[in-house]
Amino acid sequence: MTQLSEAKKGNITAEMITACQDEFISPEELRVNIAGGTAVLPKNKLHNFSNIKAIGKGLRTKVNANLGSSPLDCSIEREKDKLNIAIEAGADSVMDLSTGGDLKMFREMFVANSPVMVGTVPIYGLAAGLIRSQRPIKSMSSDEMFNEIEVQAKSGVDYMTIHCGITRQSIEMLEKSPRLLGMVSRGGTILAKWIRETGKENPFYEKFDTLLDICFEYDITLSLGDGLRPGAIADSTDQAQIEELIILSQLQKRAFNKGVQVIIEGPGHVKLSDIEMNIKLQKSLCNDAPFYVLGPITTDIAPGYDHITSAIGGAVAARAGADFLCYVTPAEHIGLPNLQDVREGVISARIAAHSADICKIPQLQKLDDEMSKARKELDWDAMYELALDPDLLRKRRQLSDIQSDNNVCTMCGDLCAIKLGKVEDKELI
Amino acid sequence: MTQLSEAKKGNITAEMITACQDEFISPEELRVNIAGGTAVLPKNKLHNFSNIKAIGKGLRTKVNANLGSSPLDCSIEREKDKLNIAIEAGADSVMDLSTGGDLKMFREMFVANSPVMVGTVPIYGLAAGLIRSQRPIKSMSSDEMFNEIEVQAKSGVDYMTIHCGITRQSIEMLEKSPRLLGMVSRGGTILAKWIRETGKENPFYEKFDTLLDICFEYDITLSLGDGLRPGAIADSTDQAQIEELIILSQLQKRAFNKGVQVIIEGPGHVKLSDIEMNIKLQKSLCNDAPFYVLGPITTDIAPGYDHITSAIGGAVAARAGADFLCYVTPAEHIGLPNLQDVREGVISARIAAHSADICKIPQLQKLDDEMSKARKELDWDAMYELALDPDLLRKRRQLSDIQSDNNVCTMCGDLCAIKLGKVEDKELI
Repeated sequence: MTQLSEAKKGNITAEMITACQDEFISPEELRVNIAGGTAVLPKNKLHNFSNIKAIGKGLRTKVNANLGSSPLDCSIEREKDKLNIAIEAGADSVMDLSTGGDLKMFREMFVANSPVMVGTVPIYGLAAGLIRSQRPIKSMSSDEMFNEIEVQAKSGVDYMTIHCGITRQSIEMLEKSPRLLGMVSRGGTILAKWIRETGKENPFYEKFDTLLDICFEYDITLSLGDGLRPGAIADSTDQAQIEELIILSQLQKRAFNKGVQVIIEGPGHVKLSDIEMNIKLQKSLCNDAPFYVLGPITTDIAPGYDHITSAIGGAVAARAGADFLCYVTPAEHIGLPNLQDVREGVISARIAAHSADICKIPQLQKLDDEMSKARKELDWDAMYELALDPDLLRKRRQLSDIQSDNNVCTMCGDLCAIKLGKVEDKELI
Repeated sequence: MTQLSEAKKGNITAEMITACQDEFISPEELRVNIAGGTAVLPKNKLHNFSNIKAIGKGLRTKVNANLGSSPLDCSIEREKDKLNIAIEAGADSVMDLSTGGDLKMFREMFVANSPVMVGTVPIYGLAAGLIRSQRPIKSMSSDEMFNEIEVQAKSGVDYMTIHCGITRQSIEMLEKSPRLLGMVSRGGTILAKWIRETGKENPFYEKFDTLLDICFEYDITLSLGDGLRPGAIADSTDQAQIEELIILSQLQKRAFNKGVQVIIEGPGHVKLSDIEMNIKLQKSLCNDAPFYVLGPITTDIAPGYDHITSAIGGAVAARAGADFLCYVTPAEHIGLPNLQDVREGVISARIAAHSADICKIPQLQKLDDEMSKARKELDWDAMYELALDPDLLRKRRQLSDIQSDNNVCTMCGDLCAIKLGKVEDKELI
């Protein structure tokens, strides 16, 4: 059984009930959405964790934090710290994208310690293994590829990004319509090289049913990766990207029919004016399957501030229907994020998600309204309670070292509009 | 003469030519837009400064930085530093919103030292004066009000926010449809109290022609303030806000007919799903006059991160047609911004502006494309050159202390997708 096969049978699982605790739909509504393929509940049967969440229609927009080592920066302690800080900051999901050090150890650490769903990109483990044994990419066998999936499935990974849409056909489309920046997906690039050098078809595409069998067995949610996502505004929404999306939409249907939960991954770098169209196109092509966007980033010229460019893009995407935001940190395009980057990345993505969610789920605006009431009362303790980041607000308030007993702030002092609006006429200046 | 009266006569002024240097329209096109009231060129006849810019149709979205002292935090040196940091970060305009200390001294410092246009809110100076002499707000006379405008005009201020739309009628509308957070505009609140306590009409509304005469004489651009802008998502786009906007639209026409340049100020706190409508409503009501938005902020729950909430709102607003973004700093709702806050505020607003501008002015995407080319070449020197904040990018890159000679970064190391895509097959791992 999978959450999807149970949902199709009309069964509400214990996980569906848990996943609804923090939502504004009932377990039965969630079941209907999962049964229709418009929501997923990523949870490997072998992985027990506390914060079970669902992603998709009618649900709060979820936020993922990409974590994991790289060949130039790998420390298990630091990754543990990053996991903790991502969870504290409110991440709904983490992905272990480790490519450096003992990958098995990193993966097991994340699965064992994460209170939220854990995703991976299995091809990274394969590529890192090749590097270690100094083998060329083309020497990788189809059996090795599926073996890695199976190994990771057994270790309890809840969802996997697999670039099934990188095929001879989509690569041909890329070659026919050249890009400014080519491919920027690590996993996609590895598979594309393999295809080009071996002349063979992508095994994850050719033997898609084998992949589905593994996913079904463990109830792995399949995140169909967008290996051809644009890495530049200039390359956005081009033939190659959309060709891959069409392939993914066909695979989505096959997975859904086999009882495997599916989400679709999307861009990337997208001009503000094209984001809504991108989301609606995915929803239309992919039977309203949940959409997992990486950003999107709305300009290329702000390295160091891509948590902001992606907050802009993520908010607009979520408002248009995207269900799952992959955070982007201030370190994007520069290096592996540090602890503070992880924190800012999660919070920025949560701001984007909440800004969109209050437009989709009216009950969520209660938080905003409570904050506005606290502001009206100049009640700082209530403001600390309600803030997305209470620690930062408290620290900043203390820094300004107010002597006034009027609870105003250093912006306006006694000329505070709220205070002026509150006091009786006779008390006026 | 004013820029508007000259434009109406068909004359291209020297200032129009200067203002087009960094734009993608010709001085004649700018003249046509100014003559139609869809663009303004704020410059007091008595103020000479180098970076003359125009705001409105066909032009890059401009960014303003609010500076100035408060009763609880006033230092002329710090304000000078803030001015410098705002300019370095790329502000197109600054406003001196000082309410603490010797206001004349602050204003003169800003006018003398700013290479960009300077705006003020004259009512602040009046209110601060009342506080100093312990007089109640209602004791302020109409003559004092116009005298302050004249004094500030003579001191070289380029544009002034005046809350002419706070009238007995708009206040009545506010009272009929109560809000969660009432009024949050400082200037608006002061005028509303004056009107309520004296029972008289707002002199800036009642004697609007007197105001226009002063503005015409010095070519002050009138920024019609939105005293009833919402301070909470809950209060957004309500009867009071729109009633005031209608009043402003009528005043806009009168000012335009008298040869006075006008911009309209707008919200504030607005739900993501209502931003485009707010902009289009303003454009429709106000004859496409330039729209100056304060944010907008897309959620109330993120104090400490309102440079991000307003980057989201500002980008969407600019994309929908807003012409001028007032920055919001991380200190918003907490206190007066410090130097770093000013810097982050300007850069965040510039990110929002550019994200929108590449959708409106295709030539501007060249910057993004150049960055993407630099990324393709892994050419870090070129990336430093092109980045919105080169210093931050350089600092971050140095921090990651790369030993590799492949110019990759610590995110992926040798698994860099761009590197994998560049090397010849034989060089592969």
